[in-house]
Amino acid sequence: MKVSVLFSGGKDSSLSALLLEPFFEVELVTCNFGLLPTGEIAAKTAKELHFPHRTVSLDREILEKAYELLLRDGFPRSAINYIHGRAVETLALDPAVKLIADGTRRDDRVPVLSISQIRSIEDRLGVQYFCPLKGYGKKVVDSLVRSYLNIEQGPSESTQKADYETELRELIRQRQGDERIRELFPVHFQSHVLSRKKFP
Amino acid sequence: MKVSVLFSGGKDSSLSALLLEPFFEVELVTCNFGLLPTGEIAAKTAKELHFPHRTVSLDREILEKAYELLLRDGFPRSAINYIHGRAVETLALDPAVKLIADGTRRDDRVPVLSISQIRSIEDRLGVQYFCPLKGYGKKVVDSLVRSYLNIEQGPSESTQKADYETELRELIRQRQGDERIRELFPVHFQSHVLSRKKFP
Repeated sequence: MKVSVLFSGGKDSSLSALLLEPFFEVELVTCNFGLLPTGEIAAKTAKELHFPHRTVSLDREILEKAYELLLRDGFPRSAINYIHGRAVETLALDPAVKLIADGTRRDDRVPVLSISQIRSIEDRLGVQYFCPLKGYGKKVVDSLVRSYLNIEQGPSESTQKADYETELRELIRQRQGDERIRELFPVHFQSHVLSRKKFP
Repeated sequence: MKVSVLFSGGKDSSLSALLLEPFFEVELVTCNFGLLPTGEIAAKTAKELHFPHRTVSLDREILEKAYELLLRDGFPRSAINYIHGRAVETLALDPAVKLIADGTRRDDRVPVLSISQIRSIEDRLGVQYFCPLKGYGKKVVDSLVRSYLNIEQGPSESTQKADYETELRELIRQRQGDERIRELFPVHFQSHVLSRKKFP
């Protein structure tokens, strides 16, 4: 069975792919709005991980709607969740895609699909969506990451990433300047995967 | 890392063990109250799956309390959840046990631990508890089962199983007779794993 894993180049989506690898034919998929070359950043990481990778263009109108949500709320939670839901839907519309997975963990709040969103996507679009890390807490994830991945970590503004936040920040930067990014996005540490440490 | 997987001989706990196998040192653990030889049934299945297995005796007072909950409610949900929580706690008290997993799926309602129960057990007892199938819907689980396991399925009363329900039903049978079992437990189909189909 082939599974398309939504891939940001971070440790959670990388680890998800690793956990699925013995049981599925894994492809990594990065979504991009055309503002920054996030697909290329992710493709490099995917190559280090030895997985096939492709970039899917998302409709720019999705980013515009997320921009509105971000400015309305003053924080990125709804905006990022909105992009994520639409990204899963966009991928699900590809007739070759039957299984979609991502790196959502037990304690994640963003991005995360509700069970009713998941059922709606599965029923409407004829795909199965699943989250290999959904039952895993932070400590187990961290110890698997230590065993299998070489990563670098840093504050979100300086870490090369291909997640939904990256292009949303860029849009804010272009339209409202750097200062506004710092107001809207909390500083948090991001991970970027460099390579695989070992193969299971 | 060694992980103790709570094991009933059913397809969910078996599949959980299979998914963990490439990344952890897996042992299967079956809990038993001494009413029926469920540990032996599970041990046979574990052998077919090529995993080490042991049986842990649970305090009989846990079964008595579950019996009370079952009679109070008239259906087994709270009783089974209660046994499950206490089973995880009992296992967590073993100083050699650091990681505990089980076969809980996305759509399961019984047995399932709430996130606050999980955090309480992790914080109080210094273990990590996780559910490899928690992010998986029924269709993905079923297709993995078809690929990796030979199973037999049947109504709960006639299928050889080593889950919490088995001994709870037996206690009802001993004290209140067969008819009462049918009143208290909904008829549902159970799976019993026979062997592995292939290795990843």
